[in-house]
Amino acid sequence: MTSRTVETTLRVRFAETDAQAVVYHANYLIYFEIGRAEYLRAQGFDYRAMEAAGTNFVVAEARATYRAPLRYDDEIVVSTRVAEVRHRSFTFAYEIRRGEALVSTGTTAHVCVDGEGRAITIPAELRALLEG
Amino acid sequence: MTSRTVETTLRVRFAETDAQAVVYHANYLIYFEIGRAEYLRAQGFDYRAMEAAGTNFVVAEARATYRAPLRYDDEIVVSTRVAEVRHRSFTFAYEIRRGEALVSTGTTAHVCVDGEGRAITIPAELRALLEG
Amino acid sequence: MTSRTVETTLRVRFAETDAQAVVYHANYLIYFEIGRAEYLRAQGFDYRAMEAAGTNFVVAEARATYRAPLRYDDEIVVSTRVAEVRHRSFTFAYEIRRGEALVSTGTTAHVCVDGEGRAITIPAELRALLEG
Amino acid sequence: MTSRTVETTLRVRFAETDAQAVVYHANYLIYFEIGRAEYLRAQGFDYRAMEAAGTNFVVAEARATYRAPLRYDDEIVVSTRVAEVRHRSFTFAYEIRRGEALVSTGTTAHVCVDGEGRAITIPAELRALLEG
Repeated sequence: MTSRTVETTLRVRFAETDAQAVVYHANYLIYFEIGRAEYLRAQGFDYRAMEAAGTNFVVAEARATYRAPLRYDDEIVVSTRVAEVRHRSFTFAYEIRRGEALVSTGTTAHVCVDGEGRAITIPAELRALLEG
Repeated sequence: MTSRTVETTLRVRFAETDAQAVVYHANYLIYFEIGRAEYLRAQGFDYRAMEAAGTNFVVAEARATYRAPLRYDDEIVVSTRVAEVRHRSFTFAYEIRRGEALVSTGTTAHVCVDGEGRAITIPAELRALLEG
Repeated sequence: MTSRTVETTLRVRFAETDAQAVVYHANYLIYFEIGRAEYLRAQGFDYRAMEAAGTNFVVAEARATYRAPLRYDDEIVVSTRVAEVRHRSFTFAYEIRRGEALVSTGTTAHVCVDGEGRAITIPAELRALLEG
Repeated sequence: MTSRTVETTLRVRFAETDAQAVVYHANYLIYFEIGRAEYLRAQGFDYRAMEAAGTNFVVAEARATYRAPLRYDDEIVVSTRVAEVRHRSFTFAYEIRRGEALVSTGTTAHVCVDGEGRAITIPAELRALLEG
């Protein structure tokens, strides 16, 4: 398994905050997704080509921990890596930091599906990419 | 032109607030959309049938005014009516009230499109429905 | 521990869908939150009174599984219950169903905090309410 | 009045798309806000200092036109400028382009408020900054 980690820098948008003046917790899943997209982009993945080929992957499970609040305009770094690759599914792991502080960890599990949404074996090209 | 108005009652979600402890301004467009969907539903409109027929309508313009802030858990009423029906486009008008207070007004203009996104004449069924 | 379950009926908003034509996965956490708010409301909880008293609770962890896709205009039921109450934290558990089908399960863990965001013992009133 | 325009480059997030496989229309207001924040940042504006001083500005009106759809992963440029500065309010104007194509235009009008949300004269520092 690859130990590659891709870091993505983001700035908290006002739209992402809530009435507690911190980032609304569901939005961390969006940060994870941006980390995932940048990870795949860095590996040369072509989302539109995969979609055009009639395959896709969907989220099967998501987890996040919240260790410290994030506020408007905070600059954060999302560190993304592949944690596991199985036959039909794979898992990404994430860490969000603001400076040195670890503010969130999380994972998302994904299943490859065909055009009808049925689980399929991970396409070889995607597998190679996930396995680094 | 119909003068029918459909009222939809909503409660502000925490996710819709921002760090000013009020509803984030972009979310009023979501409230308008819910009002629009309920208006069409009340008229017997079948969104999935339209979509299955290969036609759809898209937003061409949106406007909103913000007269008073909305807060978490506020109960609001969205009043929706058809303001104008043209050959290929139509406009909805909205008012949002909390109790007696008018907190927002707005309009959205929509264009009918075919499966390739090209503007088309409003289908007869939708026109009849919009014209009440 | 109470075995009370509160059911909340929602309809999927167009704004909640994504380009896969299903509900974007982060939005399930919003559905959970609405279930949680309705649970607390059903128990007589007064969010604004708690906030005015200078205490609040924040999300410490969230988990969701995705078993079947949700689409625009689907009517869903969120079943919410208290899964655990500790000294300073508590956990809610959720199930989302569309008709008979279980489409999602999840949990959120919460920590009580004072006005400076420091963890505090769950206030007696909230504890009584969580323990049913 | 300044004719300064600040350009901000963004990439469309999957979370911003909807079931028509395009960016959900309300999210353009978020793009405008990011353009506005970057405009103010480029001028040396300190949002937190203003907030700490007990003043803020709120959105009084928003308008957007939608000329062409945006899709997942599109790279866009938001061009932001100050369109008008009045006694207590000011207006920003925006254009969103994907490559050469103009996909959206819009404006947002803002009112300065004190800690109780009452309209106040634009603080001198902010005025100087808006007037370039």
